[in-house]
Amino acid sequence: MDLKTVRTVRDGPVRVAVDAMGGDHAPLEVVAGTLAWARAHPTDQVLLVGIPERIQAVAGGPMPANVEIVPASQVVEMDESPALALKAKKDSSIMVAMDLLKQGRADALVTAGHSGAGMAAAVLKLGRLPGVDRPALAIQMITETGPFVLLDIGANMDSSGHNLYQFAHMGSLYAERVLGVKKPRVALLSIGEEKGKGDHAIQQATQLLDEDGSLNFVGNVEGRDLVKHIADVAVCDAVVGNVTMKFFEGLARFIFDLWTKEFRRFPLGWLGYLFMIPAVRRIQMLFDYERLGASPLLGVKGMVLITHGSAKRRMMEFAVEAGATAARARIPELIAEAFRGQPRRPAQ
Amino acid sequence: MDLKTVRTVRDGPVRVAVDAMGGDHAPLEVVAGTLAWARAHPTDQVLLVGIPERIQAVAGGPMPANVEIVPASQVVEMDESPALALKAKKDSSIMVAMDLLKQGRADALVTAGHSGAGMAAAVLKLGRLPGVDRPALAIQMITETGPFVLLDIGANMDSSGHNLYQFAHMGSLYAERVLGVKKPRVALLSIGEEKGKGDHAIQQATQLLDEDGSLNFVGNVEGRDLVKHIADVAVCDAVVGNVTMKFFEGLARFIFDLWTKEFRRFPLGWLGYLFMIPAVRRIQMLFDYERLGASPLLGVKGMVLITHGSAKRRMMEFAVEAGATAARARIPELIAEAFRGQPRRPAQ
Repeated sequence: MDLKTVRTVRDGPVRVAVDAMGGDHAPLEVVAGTLAWARAHPTDQVLLVGIPERIQAVAGGPMPANVEIVPASQVVEMDESPALALKAKKDSSIMVAMDLLKQGRADALVTAGHSGAGMAAAVLKLGRLPGVDRPALAIQMITETGPFVLLDIGANMDSSGHNLYQFAHMGSLYAERVLGVKKPRVALLSIGEEKGKGDHAIQQATQLLDEDGSLNFVGNVEGRDLVKHIADVAVCDAVVGNVTMKFFEGLARFIFDLWTKEFRRFPLGWLGYLFMIPAVRRIQMLFDYERLGASPLLGVKGMVLITHGSAKRRMMEFAVEAGATAARARIPELIAEAFRGQPRRPAQ
Repeated sequence: MDLKTVRTVRDGPVRVAVDAMGGDHAPLEVVAGTLAWARAHPTDQVLLVGIPERIQAVAGGPMPANVEIVPASQVVEMDESPALALKAKKDSSIMVAMDLLKQGRADALVTAGHSGAGMAAAVLKLGRLPGVDRPALAIQMITETGPFVLLDIGANMDSSGHNLYQFAHMGSLYAERVLGVKKPRVALLSIGEEKGKGDHAIQQATQLLDEDGSLNFVGNVEGRDLVKHIADVAVCDAVVGNVTMKFFEGLARFIFDLWTKEFRRFPLGWLGYLFMIPAVRRIQMLFDYERLGASPLLGVKGMVLITHGSAKRRMMEFAVEAGATAARARIPELIAEAFRGQPRRPAQ
């Protein structure tokens, strides 16, 4: 699998469609974060998709010139069944936003809504890229020395070695073009550091990656080394990736809540904070969950990014930025080119 | 699967065999931690297994009355292949210690040596308990409100739903008898909180646990809720458990190293520390990796515990304590009774 033509980044403005109605704090926080991003990027464009009156009501004033509201009359709620909701709600904000992407009116789509519905809508409306057996959901995890890409964190169950092999390619492209890493170090997230150690799918993926030779495949990475940034791309099955990512989130929230609580209870704590700023800042930076932004769904015909259902304005701003960056980097086009001529393989 | 006879804890002293030669810092740190434990528990007994001269040399004085050295002339090194090493080194400290357990001269065995060799030696020398398809390696993870048991963290690859179902039973027994939790809440560690959401093995285990009904099965736990202690037992496949546990270890080491470095670089940091003691203490407590102690290998005919290869004296002391506690609770006997009459099932 070789990338023959090196594409340049997208020229001109990017157009990001935002599902204004999706998320625990929609539309208020979603709109606020999106508008903040739009104001900071006046040459780019934003399409806010949802119920116009509700979006206007929370916008708190006139829209910036680079923001357009695209009407959608329905909302997929966080507790709905994705399959049923998408069937019943053809005019939901997520489906209308997906149409904008399909029609080429938007270059990326960002949603804080039901992640299952977002992924299902993407596969339904856009479809997989030719040669891609299964899409993968990725996330940028933070370390002291920079981010790495972790995937799959939830698009598929029971991925085969061949699926992991394809995820490795998509993750490598993303790390190269979005994170700007030259020759990203690609590793399989597994149980031991010896190459090939792991379950059946990991062993199979190891063999495929070794045979392929086109990626900078460095073998396995263990959980304890993720934070050391010894890989730029960590590839795994969805349960592993999802548990890892959410465990990190749980610890981050715990630390943040604890800090806040102690400072409130004991005002002199702020004095302590002054003396410990370097250590506290670095821990806060590492555990700043909101900076994770949004998760790109790699392998579908369009740049779809899913952010946290509980995202507030600051995280939404990072999420829209992630969408714009991925659109600028032409990720779906690059994946399409990398996978051109790859026969689809059945799950093994 | 019902535990008919409620056994009491083991009466009288417990005898813990310690592999004095296993681990990155063996024998010095292993012996130091073990002796510290022995001095604090004068009515219990310790068998230090290894090369007598080397053990004596690092002991720093006469042995306490409750410590006996059991000679073993060989050592399995950390980088050896377990299968080859165990075959070639019949008189290695881990094999001799396993014999003590088998002969009933010890009630528990603790090793900081090669974990693969420790597990292989246990299965080889002791064998699985009747009815147990596969043993599982468990660990006590820490939360603010107490520990929970996570398993499997590395005994098996590609566990089936039936394996997970058996792990749930063994983990529940361990939580009940060692952590002292009444009716432990057992959950499957998975990708979503809805019961049954997950891969094929998780769905199958959900069905078996629902049909069984004898455990306090609460459905799924997500990665983000582990730290909230909503389950006393979290059951998963080895790759998931191992990555989770080691990711936690990586973060814990990062925080600890950072703290130490900042304090050294900036002595006034200690002043800050004074003001922030409550918050810092609680973060330190949560991330105090050494308190994890040792991982019990559940499902074999003897109480084997494996601790971290890099364990120093403090962690070894926690590890020997974990061994003594598990021996007192008669864990293998309880598992044997719980699984009595269970036909062995093939992997699915």
